[in-house]
Amino acid sequence: MAIDFKQDILAPVAQDFAEMDTFINEGITSKVALVMAVSKHVVEAGGKRMRPIMCLLAAKACGAEDLAQQRKLAAIIEMLHTATLVHDDVVDESGLRRGRPTANATWNNQTAVLVGDFLISRSFDLLVDLNNMTLLKDFSTGTCEIAEGEVLQLQAQHQPDTNEQTYLDIIHGKTSRLFELATEGAAILTGTPEYREPLRKFAGHFGNAFQIIDDILDYTSDAETLGKNIGDDLMEGKPTLPLISALQHTTGEQHQIIRKSIATGGTAQLEQVIEIVQQSGALDYCRKRATEETEAALAALMALPDTQYRQALSNLAQLALHRIQ
Amino acid sequence: MAIDFKQDILAPVAQDFAEMDTFINEGITSKVALVMAVSKHVVEAGGKRMRPIMCLLAAKACGAEDLAQQRKLAAIIEMLHTATLVHDDVVDESGLRRGRPTANATWNNQTAVLVGDFLISRSFDLLVDLNNMTLLKDFSTGTCEIAEGEVLQLQAQHQPDTNEQTYLDIIHGKTSRLFELATEGAAILTGTPEYREPLRKFAGHFGNAFQIIDDILDYTSDAETLGKNIGDDLMEGKPTLPLISALQHTTGEQHQIIRKSIATGGTAQLEQVIEIVQQSGALDYCRKRATEETEAALAALMALPDTQYRQALSNLAQLALHRIQ
Repeated sequence: MAIDFKQDILAPVAQDFAEMDTFINEGITSKVALVMAVSKHVVEAGGKRMRPIMCLLAAKACGAEDLAQQRKLAAIIEMLHTATLVHDDVVDESGLRRGRPTANATWNNQTAVLVGDFLISRSFDLLVDLNNMTLLKDFSTGTCEIAEGEVLQLQAQHQPDTNEQTYLDIIHGKTSRLFELATEGAAILTGTPEYREPLRKFAGHFGNAFQIIDDILDYTSDAETLGKNIGDDLMEGKPTLPLISALQHTTGEQHQIIRKSIATGGTAQLEQVIEIVQQSGALDYCRKRATEETEAALAALMALPDTQYRQALSNLAQLALHRIQ
Repeated sequence: MAIDFKQDILAPVAQDFAEMDTFINEGITSKVALVMAVSKHVVEAGGKRMRPIMCLLAAKACGAEDLAQQRKLAAIIEMLHTATLVHDDVVDESGLRRGRPTANATWNNQTAVLVGDFLISRSFDLLVDLNNMTLLKDFSTGTCEIAEGEVLQLQAQHQPDTNEQTYLDIIHGKTSRLFELATEGAAILTGTPEYREPLRKFAGHFGNAFQIIDDILDYTSDAETLGKNIGDDLMEGKPTLPLISALQHTTGEQHQIIRKSIATGGTAQLEQVIEIVQQSGALDYCRKRATEETEAALAALMALPDTQYRQALSNLAQLALHRIQ
């Protein structure tokens, strides 16, 4: 039976989610009109708000009854996520995100850099109000690792020798770490430190699977339905797992074509590279890795009590995997 | 008698300053080579480290004996300052700072944005280690205001109707707020909350004077000796106090030339505008305002005990003012 996002994931925390969403908007306050306009624009362009939902579900799965604090945390996580997207779009020179014009495209790079800085600072400001030193330390260390993951990705750009371990380091920083903060943070705030480690593992593996799946979609036609273009990563010379795996699966001319396309980026041999990736068995390997990461995520969840909230987290991980099935 | 920076300002905290400098370098740790390279580059390109010196002097002026914690705070402030400079240089498309190539020029905008993000996060991470909630709240609110000041400056760009109050709001955010954090933070860490307000006032007025002086130097030939070009702000259409004041001091054609040059930026009438600013009495007004701000800073200092450290802070304010005399 197919998993339904609203019914099988969101429903158990729907009320808290709605209140959380209000808090995101209330949390963005500034006397500077341009700060307000840009912040509203990027926060409203948000997607499914997967990170805050995970935070709320994790809190409930830890046994929290009233989520007053955790709703604020969930909103902060979405704000932090938004801040990283605003800077990512500057870095990638993206004009569209989820079909809407990005901040850098609507205004300019300058505005996007500075409003991104505001959103990072405001996230910390709201986080300090939660008055929990353990939480603050987790987040301050975590945001360093997120930034490091982004820089590592930049460092690996156009490097055909990038291996799977470096790829995993990159995606742990740029993607999985924030999922970890969302769920670990919920355990910290709920006062159930015993669930911190299993939730971190769940979120870390989930994040890895999520990013591997995203990188697979960059090489499959399904991507068009998601507002993503095939070959975006390739154009930028990003050595994602499909390319790393394709290098493992090929020799001779095909191998050289992929190496060269990572090194140079651009469109020159775009269709040829996509064909090699699709026919080399690289995508099968990526799907296998995404499935393994999802299974590791689900296994970690078993340390938590069997509740509808744990089930919803499990459903989320399975739904993400369905994107490539 | 002329004030000497080393003798009359730095000397009373020279030993702590040296240890603080070591901590700045130790504080920058990352497994990512590119993060290390860029961070070292920008931190080493630092200037006189005025903010950390003020922090150390303020701590001593509050009666602190051992500065173990305050040295860390001083290093964090310099790191935060460096982070804002890295993003400023992206925003202003600057190729040189203090005669050295900027991060965006040496690497690229992408790297500068992301390493700037790392430095902001790392500053917070080190700040959390100081384990002081009052300090954390002051800094998290303060960094929001710094970002807002930067965005307000962007919003005012090319706006000839910008008034002196808006200009003061901009410079309070982009410049004075970090000076305030440096000295207020020292009072908080030293456990002398009674000195927090006078030190904040001192640093706020000092910062205003400092920025007004910097903006005057953009229109006087002395600037060339400081590695700054005449007319940089004008080129970018920034309505700084010399231009705002020149609009007050002129009518007719001269008035229109200045309005137009703010609105359009660029070089078209550069020399003419500089001449109008210099001859209109605008710079005299700016010097008067810088002097008033310096006097307000010195007056606020009087709430602190009469020590060599208070004297050194006073010397610093007077030395800054000498730049335009």
